[in-house]
Amino acid sequence: MISKAHTKYIQSLRHKKFRDETGLFFAEGPKLVMDLLGSGSFTCKEIFALPQWMDEHAAMLANLSGTSITAIKDFELEKISALSTPHEVLAVFEKQKPDERFDAAGKITLALDGVQDPGNMGTIIRIADWFGIANIVCAGGTADMYNPKVVQSTMGSLGRVNIVYTNLPAWLKRNNTVKIYAATLQGQDVRTIGILIEGIIIIGNEAAGISEQVLALATEKITIPKEGLAESLNAAVATGIILSHTR
Amino acid sequence: MISKAHTKYIQSLRHKKFRDETGLFFAEGPKLVMDLLGSGSFTCKEIFALPQWMDEHAAMLANLSGTSITAIKDFELEKISALSTPHEVLAVFEKQKPDERFDAAGKITLALDGVQDPGNMGTIIRIADWFGIANIVCAGGTADMYNPKVVQSTMGSLGRVNIVYTNLPAWLKRNNTVKIYAATLQGQDVRTIGILIEGIIIIGNEAAGISEQVLALATEKITIPKEGLAESLNAAVATGIILSHTR
Repeated sequence: MISKAHTKYIQSLRHKKFRDETGLFFAEGPKLVMDLLGSGSFTCKEIFALPQWMDEHAAMLANLSGTSITAIKDFELEKISALSTPHEVLAVFEKQKPDERFDAAGKITLALDGVQDPGNMGTIIRIADWFGIANIVCAGGTADMYNPKVVQSTMGSLGRVNIVYTNLPAWLKRNNTVKIYAATLQGQDVRTIGILIEGIIIIGNEAAGISEQVLALATEKITIPKEGLAESLNAAVATGIILSHTR
Repeated sequence: MISKAHTKYIQSLRHKKFRDETGLFFAEGPKLVMDLLGSGSFTCKEIFALPQWMDEHAAMLANLSGTSITAIKDFELEKISALSTPHEVLAVFEKQKPDERFDAAGKITLALDGVQDPGNMGTIIRIADWFGIANIVCAGGTADMYNPKVVQSTMGSLGRVNIVYTNLPAWLKRNNTVKIYAATLQGQDVRTIGILIEGIIIIGNEAAGISEQVLALATEKITIPKEGLAESLNAAVATGIILSHTR
């Protein structure tokens, strides 16, 4: 059973404003919830699940301390879920405090200048995790990492990448001992860059690309050469291609 | 004005069954509709648009022959639209007859073994268009290229790639003079394959990968090496990475 007020409260976590106020977010589905519980990266505050899921995970649930666990019915899960097809369980976690003072020297860092689509954002976090990128720096206007759609599309990579939201131009200026590579439509062929040991790779907004202010701070421009007629590549696909050529 | 029956008819085109029966599909939004109209790949049967869009494109509309053009109101567009935020115009086009007998020799062909997510499918079509891949062969169970979500995410690349739905194992057997590369989690590092002049590259289903029957027909296995902890890469991202290393 979940009260009307509590239902509203969970629903409000779909909005960044309330996630920021409460310091909470939610994740859904057996696989993702188990991944985040097992990651040790996020403290779980509440679990809402169908009885069969509770039964299957009774031993694990018994070991959780400080987590409120509530058995709910299908129609209640439908109300709190942000998915078109809810999956057995929804869990509320505490947001992580990002490490804002990490050192960009000696490593590859991704910088996102306004990637807006939550699916792209989640996929980029997953790509960073695949390629062992430890840090992502995001300009204002970049999709919130705790947006339910982002959370769902990270597929458990959320806790394994340090994601910082900041003033990107100011951050780039503070890290100007490291080369800054901007992904643009006209630059050096990504296949000729070679393996990078250190660098900041900037990916721009899906429609507008990298802002002028940020582009002015780049030391190199890199491009994925086009052989056909498509106008652009998806931002997440471009990120994957650039990382695979430079790692 | 659009009648109730006509509204239902457009809505029915969200379903593959009705698209197959009628040979029609629809696309939405000023950019995509103009791209498809301009591509010359698809015959446009009907356009439903808000008056301001009609006014802006009066000259172009006057040159269309055989296309029924209907001015509609916001609330009518909302009813026929498959988008959460409808954009000015929806156009109904005739599906293209694919070239099923293209020759796989001397070129790179993509084969999709059950890619199911419409967003991934659309993004893969766009990637193929970016890298100048002329043909995609799809196994049964692969998302329909005319699914509204696929159409929207192709961003106009739809008419520039020949997409064939067929029995993939049988097709691979008929094209066995060409090397067949399967994207798997264990195989040769994609960065060591080099540029390919000819070959069929198989991408599998998001969860299950490539089916056993298809995998048995592959002559090579290729892998994108993982440095971090993510379980998998998005299917479209993997397609982009493989093509960028082998084109």
